[in-house]
Amino acid sequence: MQKNMEKLELVIGYRFKKKKLIEEALTHPSCDNGISYERLEFLGDLVLDAIVGIQLFKEHPSAPESFLTDLKAAYVNRKYLHKTGENLKLHKFIQHRTSEVPSLDNFIEAIIGAIYLDGGWKRAEGFIKKFILNKKIEPIQNYKNILSSIVRRDFKTEPVYEIESEKGPPHKKIYVVKVRIPGKRYVGRGSAGNKKDAGMAAAKELLKKLGIT
Amino acid sequence: MQKNMEKLELVIGYRFKKKKLIEEALTHPSCDNGISYERLEFLGDLVLDAIVGIQLFKEHPSAPESFLTDLKAAYVNRKYLHKTGENLKLHKFIQHRTSEVPSLDNFIEAIIGAIYLDGGWKRAEGFIKKFILNKKIEPIQNYKNILSSIVRRDFKTEPVYEIESEKGPPHKKIYVVKVRIPGKRYVGRGSAGNKKDAGMAAAKELLKKLGIT
Repeated sequence: MQKNMEKLELVIGYRFKKKKLIEEALTHPSCDNGISYERLEFLGDLVLDAIVGIQLFKEHPSAPESFLTDLKAAYVNRKYLHKTGENLKLHKFIQHRTSEVPSLDNFIEAIIGAIYLDGGWKRAEGFIKKFILNKKIEPIQNYKNILSSIVRRDFKTEPVYEIESEKGPPHKKIYVVKVRIPGKRYVGRGSAGNKKDAGMAAAKELLKKLGIT
Repeated sequence: MQKNMEKLELVIGYRFKKKKLIEEALTHPSCDNGISYERLEFLGDLVLDAIVGIQLFKEHPSAPESFLTDLKAAYVNRKYLHKTGENLKLHKFIQHRTSEVPSLDNFIEAIIGAIYLDGGWKRAEGFIKKFILNKKIEPIQNYKNILSSIVRRDFKTEPVYEIESEKGPPHKKIYVVKVRIPGKRYVGRGSAGNKKDAGMAAAKELLKKLGIT
């Protein structure tokens, strides 16, 4: 165990003063041995959000808030963080008693929490810049936000969303959402298993009709 | 305007080096004059979350993550922040062109973003401790989380939620959600205008039947 931790410290480029912290960050609650990453994950999630957000705010001094929100989402979403965990080969270092390897995003956040507690803000920032902000990625586009800002700007109104239909049994519903611009003929439609995604697809279609995407 | 800003600086106990920042923080997008609080709100939201979370983490060294999450939610939710804005009489200082006074929570976040940019982390922390963390409040209880942890502990399983019915027109639906514990007879029901709140009410009822709340 001791050896293994030292290997991980080499991988992440940070040596812990309090070794208990990194042990805690790598322990899944399923181990049921009195320690778990959950508190550190709570902390790391907040520190990660703030550091990424502050960095993007500075890097894009004239970008609108919606762009910053979408770009931040691209860096802190579960999938991207899980991938970051895979790149660090975290599965070799974590402890769990679940049948499958648990998702690695929570461990990444817990490691950030542990580095912050042990070494402070600057060291947590160092980890995040090295392993998370090191790739240039595209914003996760929130088509509804984009559509809203364009409709506000060009038509001085707001797009209106309606659920056009709901099909299927309660646990497997398909929603069709229609979006329109009041007083205009433009309409977009989208369908998905939940209203949010259906609305997003509808907004995307309408943006296409408006010649935006 | 100049005079007014000086009054606000007295109220919040912070004097800005860059006066443009506080002006930006107090300008609602409806003014349509090229500045708006939106970017500062993005920043302030993250700084607020991190500072409150870190503080609660330290103050409650043995509390589970779910307690920290719920207590943080009590301090950073829209309603509480709007109330904070009312206490500071922010409506006297903001600029907007909406017919009603806009909700004040976004301005509070933008002010935090502005203080952070102008004076750094410590000064933002000072504002938050003085006006937001100054009251002892109860966690916003997430009954679904509480139920889950109890059902895991006592029954080694997870509660199961089902939408029992949906009534009313699409824009005014009432959802009835049922929650049960697999293999047991305990059932809770709740209804609300959205699935989340209906599930929360169902969990609360089941917790009552289990003798918890």
